[in-house]
Amino acid sequence: MMSGIQFSATSSGMKPSGPDTGLVVFKQGMYVSSLYTRNKVKAAHIMYNKKVATNPVKALFVNSGCANACTGKEGIEDLTIIASRLSKLLHVKPEEILFASTGVIGKRLPVDKILDALPVLTKNLKEGNVEPFAQSIMTTDTHQKIGREQFAGRKQYTIMGVAKGSGMINPLFATMLAFFFTDYPASPETIKKSFVLAARESFERITVDGECSTNDTILLFTKKGHQDIEAMKSFNEKLSFLMKKLAMMVVHDGEGATRVVHIMVKGAKNQCIAEKIARRIAISPLTKTAFFGCDPNWGRIMAAIGDADTPLKPSRVEIIMQGEVLAREGREIPFDEQHMKQLMNKKEIDLIVNLHDGHASCDIFTTDLTYDYVKINASYRS
Amino acid sequence: MMSGIQFSATSSGMKPSGPDTGLVVFKQGMYVSSLYTRNKVKAAHIMYNKKVATNPVKALFVNSGCANACTGKEGIEDLTIIASRLSKLLHVKPEEILFASTGVIGKRLPVDKILDALPVLTKNLKEGNVEPFAQSIMTTDTHQKIGREQFAGRKQYTIMGVAKGSGMINPLFATMLAFFFTDYPASPETIKKSFVLAARESFERITVDGECSTNDTILLFTKKGHQDIEAMKSFNEKLSFLMKKLAMMVVHDGEGATRVVHIMVKGAKNQCIAEKIARRIAISPLTKTAFFGCDPNWGRIMAAIGDADTPLKPSRVEIIMQGEVLAREGREIPFDEQHMKQLMNKKEIDLIVNLHDGHASCDIFTTDLTYDYVKINASYRS
Repeated sequence: MMSGIQFSATSSGMKPSGPDTGLVVFKQGMYVSSLYTRNKVKAAHIMYNKKVATNPVKALFVNSGCANACTGKEGIEDLTIIASRLSKLLHVKPEEILFASTGVIGKRLPVDKILDALPVLTKNLKEGNVEPFAQSIMTTDTHQKIGREQFAGRKQYTIMGVAKGSGMINPLFATMLAFFFTDYPASPETIKKSFVLAARESFERITVDGECSTNDTILLFTKKGHQDIEAMKSFNEKLSFLMKKLAMMVVHDGEGATRVVHIMVKGAKNQCIAEKIARRIAISPLTKTAFFGCDPNWGRIMAAIGDADTPLKPSRVEIIMQGEVLAREGREIPFDEQHMKQLMNKKEIDLIVNLHDGHASCDIFTTDLTYDYVKINASYRS
Repeated sequence: MMSGIQFSATSSGMKPSGPDTGLVVFKQGMYVSSLYTRNKVKAAHIMYNKKVATNPVKALFVNSGCANACTGKEGIEDLTIIASRLSKLLHVKPEEILFASTGVIGKRLPVDKILDALPVLTKNLKEGNVEPFAQSIMTTDTHQKIGREQFAGRKQYTIMGVAKGSGMINPLFATMLAFFFTDYPASPETIKKSFVLAARESFERITVDGECSTNDTILLFTKKGHQDIEAMKSFNEKLSFLMKKLAMMVVHDGEGATRVVHIMVKGAKNQCIAEKIARRIAISPLTKTAFFGCDPNWGRIMAAIGDADTPLKPSRVEIIMQGEVLAREGREIPFDEQHMKQLMNKKEIDLIVNLHDGHASCDIFTTDLTYDYVKINASYRS
């Protein structure tokens, strides 16, 4: 529990079951640092937060079941109506409320249902209510995603993170929603660099299906007050650690995923080449189905590498899976097929691709592609 | 049947069942025009054909079950051995023989099995044996792909096409193998432009899984002799028509596919934007699973459009599926969900995306993403 930050959640009826609206209220205004999707089609809450909201802020309203994306100016007006009503209940200014939505694209928010839910949400506010709040942003997620880290400076500090994400997890900014709260005092300016870096090394390093959402949002709420320089390094480390932890929770809960594959491309001439190749492997349906089938099909990995739109010396490539060398100098090293199948039948697979062409590297975490991914997305309107 | 072109096929035992080696022999040498994969990792036959083979050529040897890719210089030496033996049986020079392979990447050709099969292949040669030949290049294909067109000039001419392709069908050069034979006399120089254009408008307009193969090969064999200028236009038209026909056979036989989606992006500022957006929609797992589930989920299409890395005015986008407007000015136009589901439950779906921002357009044909795609690729070493 973090003193002065209250959570709540309730069901407005927007989703068939479970909580679908959530609220966080900050007793004292908190600074917010934000990162939003790179998709050209952006949800209404992103435009609203950027245009309307002040900094510091006093509350965050979230909902699942409706992305409020592709809803035009009415989508923003709907948020204005909710902010207006909520501001009265919370005794804050409307522009001190931030929004974040996730769910089906193209549908307007059911404003009446939400307005009806607001008094309940306000009444339920409690410092200990993080779990119901975390549940209120779940869509195809199979479990809630919460993390907590502590570190010391002048005093003891806490960072807490709540995330959701399962499908439409893309390689460049892979989350749907992730919120971080800390009682460590810091302004957005002083932590901007470490915040962006932590996101780059975590949520930007995972992919489930290569799909970039219209709603991706990471918000970091920090306390107002004199910065505790002594604890700055610990804060940066813990923020980075926590973001990685939550990002890994997201990829492990990837839609239909049975395994997470850690792809490490190394020996690249530069970082850009390493990243392009790692991402190309990570979104390849043929390598992802092979991971599902425990098939040490390194040929498909080679084909993906060759299709990454980078310079390449195929005759130098080495492929190592679960510690076993499958190919060297671009060619097969004989291996025991059955033994490899057993080694791959794990929840986590390590794949190293060494280009033997330099010293740059890049790590990407991806999932396998399974029947259940197809099932979830062919039958569920998400 | 085309006079002077003989086909044969047999089983060498390289594949568990069915014919896996094929041969075409030209009584008189024929010119060859070729297009090969853009993947940086290229199969041995591509390097061999480019380096060793002369033009005109007298024979084409094909095999399925082994891609002979990522096999280093030994992969090329294996072809040299086969060419040497085959040249003696056919009484041609080794360099007058072309090769094309498809199948598993990373494994060497079973040269002994192939050498044993050569006498049978030579003995089976017949002008009428096109069907067994077409079967000998099939992998996950569910049926053979043959097309034939006729046109007139100084005399009656024929073009015949044989193709294979089902998985690893990529958006930029989407075939595995396609061969075209014509008794129309033309040199590679005079037809280069129309050949490349016909490929661009056919095999480069389809995608199953966005995967670019190491082996993609299109070969066009034309007769030596004085060009029949009068029939040039008809030849170009028929070649283009036949390539489209075979490309459509490939996409319709896409691995696990239940539908083919014709994506037409129009109203773009330029052709490049139209193409990027069409291809982005075509490889999106979320739109492809929605097509499988007959879900008129235009929001996922909008998300893919926004993620295409092009300039975009989301508020102008219009989305029309099976003739029904689902969205206009970037927003939903109310439609009957059940009626749409019925309209989408077809073997062919038409999707029009109008960007209302210019006059350029691009058509791409793709498949849905189904359980069977996962099944085929998680359980079959292809």
